[in-house]
Amino acid sequence: MACESQHFLNEHNINPNVKVMEYAVRGPLLIRACEIEKELEQGIEKPFTEVIKANIGDGHAMGQIPITFVRQILALVTYPPLFDNPIFPEDAKERARVILSGCRGGSIGSYTEACGIEIIRKHVAQYIERRDGISSNWQNIVLTSGASDGIKKILKLFICKENGKKTGVMIPIPQYPFYSATLDEFNMYQIRYYLDESKGWGLNIDELQRSIDEARRLCHPRVLVVINPGNPTGQVLTKENIEAIIKFAYKERLFLLADEVYQDNVYAENSKFHSFKKIMTEMGEPYNKMELASFMSCSKGYMGECGLRGGYTEVINMCPKVKAMYFKANTAMLCPSVLGQACLDTIVNPPGEGELSYEKFIREKEDVLNSLKFRAKMVVDAFNSFEGFSCNEVQGALYAFPQFKLPLKAIEAAKEVNQHPDVFYAFQLLENAGVCVVPGSGFGQQPGTFHFRTTILPQVDKLKIMLDKFEAFHKEFINKYK
Amino acid sequence: MACESQHFLNEHNINPNVKVMEYAVRGPLLIRACEIEKELEQGIEKPFTEVIKANIGDGHAMGQIPITFVRQILALVTYPPLFDNPIFPEDAKERARVILSGCRGGSIGSYTEACGIEIIRKHVAQYIERRDGISSNWQNIVLTSGASDGIKKILKLFICKENGKKTGVMIPIPQYPFYSATLDEFNMYQIRYYLDESKGWGLNIDELQRSIDEARRLCHPRVLVVINPGNPTGQVLTKENIEAIIKFAYKERLFLLADEVYQDNVYAENSKFHSFKKIMTEMGEPYNKMELASFMSCSKGYMGECGLRGGYTEVINMCPKVKAMYFKANTAMLCPSVLGQACLDTIVNPPGEGELSYEKFIREKEDVLNSLKFRAKMVVDAFNSFEGFSCNEVQGALYAFPQFKLPLKAIEAAKEVNQHPDVFYAFQLLENAGVCVVPGSGFGQQPGTFHFRTTILPQVDKLKIMLDKFEAFHKEFINKYK
Repeated sequence: MACESQHFLNEHNINPNVKVMEYAVRGPLLIRACEIEKELEQGIEKPFTEVIKANIGDGHAMGQIPITFVRQILALVTYPPLFDNPIFPEDAKERARVILSGCRGGSIGSYTEACGIEIIRKHVAQYIERRDGISSNWQNIVLTSGASDGIKKILKLFICKENGKKTGVMIPIPQYPFYSATLDEFNMYQIRYYLDESKGWGLNIDELQRSIDEARRLCHPRVLVVINPGNPTGQVLTKENIEAIIKFAYKERLFLLADEVYQDNVYAENSKFHSFKKIMTEMGEPYNKMELASFMSCSKGYMGECGLRGGYTEVINMCPKVKAMYFKANTAMLCPSVLGQACLDTIVNPPGEGELSYEKFIREKEDVLNSLKFRAKMVVDAFNSFEGFSCNEVQGALYAFPQFKLPLKAIEAAKEVNQHPDVFYAFQLLENAGVCVVPGSGFGQQPGTFHFRTTILPQVDKLKIMLDKFEAFHKEFINKYK
Repeated sequence: MACESQHFLNEHNINPNVKVMEYAVRGPLLIRACEIEKELEQGIEKPFTEVIKANIGDGHAMGQIPITFVRQILALVTYPPLFDNPIFPEDAKERARVILSGCRGGSIGSYTEACGIEIIRKHVAQYIERRDGISSNWQNIVLTSGASDGIKKILKLFICKENGKKTGVMIPIPQYPFYSATLDEFNMYQIRYYLDESKGWGLNIDELQRSIDEARRLCHPRVLVVINPGNPTGQVLTKENIEAIIKFAYKERLFLLADEVYQDNVYAENSKFHSFKKIMTEMGEPYNKMELASFMSCSKGYMGECGLRGGYTEVINMCPKVKAMYFKANTAMLCPSVLGQACLDTIVNPPGEGELSYEKFIREKEDVLNSLKFRAKMVVDAFNSFEGFSCNEVQGALYAFPQFKLPLKAIEAAKEVNQHPDVFYAFQLLENAGVCVVPGSGFGQQPGTFHFRTTILPQVDKLKIMLDKFEAFHKEFINKYK
């Protein structure tokens, strides 16, 4: 089509950064999965009756139940006549009243301060203090429309060229492809450091050093992103690993971004979540003066409220002038979703022991987390039983990222259709078994290795079906191409 | 402070575009207004007992009541046990069921498609068809987290340099300063075209031509932004004016952005909202093939749901390849707030005649709009009675933007404290009368003129108090400086 002459905005004059952006989680595999679902609806016959979508970290989509307390409070602040309704417990009503008292005109329909409702920011600070045993200043808390929103607003501050070189941002490989997409959009250089699969996906300081030394020729390294617990890799970093990373960041003068959205998703017996802030503070001088931004979200954990779009950023030791500019820049987007803020409030200020809603809340929370722990193990055990597969323990987060070996014939077949082998494998899995995962190439991996990311989110029955189908498919696939 | 050596991210290496961004609506006047409120809380005596915040287009903050139907549906989709509750009418329940059927796992906590829930996009298309009498394709509708979000995602597509020249975007002066802030952030050139105060703030084609001809030396003009009804100026463009603008955009090969968030706020007897899409379509070839993006929001109108963060963009005649890239770029931010989408659904799919909730809905809607119409006139009449003031009719939107003349002594006093005269005036108004407005310099104005923007949003009683205080202050001010 004669795009250029016909359209004022066309593929030749569009923002070149937008042109290259990729986001594999919602990429071609998912698009094809949705097409297949429509085909099934139209009665087209397939070797399966449903598509199991294990591509995205969305609990509710896969049958996870919302936390009652969260939804009660959201309903109350949305429709205040419900305060007269006896089905709502008093502790929910009390929290809802507090939230509304922080809303102008007593309505969640009013804009709030750009950094969020003050009382909620204070509750977030208290949550952080309880979690870490270290004080948190509410004025360093910025509420966001989800962690992605928060991360973009921080990364944006680094768009700058120095001596003609772009800003470089260190990101883990494999990484959550929101990072690569955002860095492409912002025309920043991706300094890729490989996580060590042989060491449970830990961060190897030598590897961090290698990646930054190589990158210095091409960019000006300024930021180190760490995802803990890891996505897609599911590792929960040890205290020692975190300390080493902090020392490295200090030495290389890097601003730390700690993506900690999975902090409630820790399953492995010997794993424990340590916040970067806590470790940095405990390390004392000079590390406790380093600049850090930590991110949390309503989307993961035990609540899974992805669609609410809520989260927070805590900025530590930020230059006051920078902080003022950062806050000012946020005002032009007015404010984060007020219901997202309310959701976050409920998460950081849950029922305490003795409160009316406590028992039910704890039961619901533990049901979700225990089930996730069970499914994490189920998935890893299943994959480790497949020929050519090896899957690290899912210590935390919501995904498994197994490595698999492919017979030469399969690699050739992939080449013939111009697909990366793991993409080829994932498409075959989808077309033949109706299971949608995301190929490892969408996240990055050591060259010559193949992986995919699956969530652990289908409910246990569905997950069993999925793993059975997967196993059957894999046997057939290996047989076909050996 | 030794910012540079101490902080890795400091005022010298921060994104230079973030450094220059200003957003006057939440600028120094508001910051001071909030300080004064805190001072009043602490018992500090002032010539007034409350601050009346007329700086921001937030209806609920100033006492506007949420629409019952909207909140009922939001409560139902948030907390489905309420479906058993008889206080909710069946038509609200039915709509809530439809929304939930479009949510994965039947939960508003699931991510949706990045462009929003399909059934809501279809409802938006139907709304547009009813409004314009012209067909709308739901696949050209993208749901957003408010119009600001939608506009940024479109403007972003134009970040591009051609022959070393930045993209130029034509914006009206006075303008809503979200535009200048965003263009600063994106390093785009602001092509400023003055609205004609002597012609009810209409767009003068000669002026559009002047601004673009001058700008061509410095940038590559690609986009024309029109805000209709206008913010801060309140004009509702005539059909003829819109046609002339469209012809101009065609001639100059500009992509049109129609910010139509105030489409429900039309008060003047002889004014009527005409969407750019409708006029463009009715003009036939070649205009009906032009590229256009139109924006709508849940924040204004009669619903005023600013905090919900909901809205849509309709893209007309977009190059299919560009559209694909635009859609893909949106996926990395996952999806707009699902409750924002639900709010939008209720707005575009309100109760119809004969439905249970219709009478109450219409009454509430008309109460708000009639009251706004009344207050629009009240404000204009009041200002036109002040010495040295002249205020155009508020034909639509939520603001008045009066021009005022200042005695020479006042201008000198402003100079002495290094403030623009309208900033000086606004600060004096705030400190002496407790009324917070936004100086015209925050929006742009013809050099040598002074304006401010006030909302018309305080409820009638409060508005009367505000206008009385204003009048008293103005008399005293003129007396002091004459």
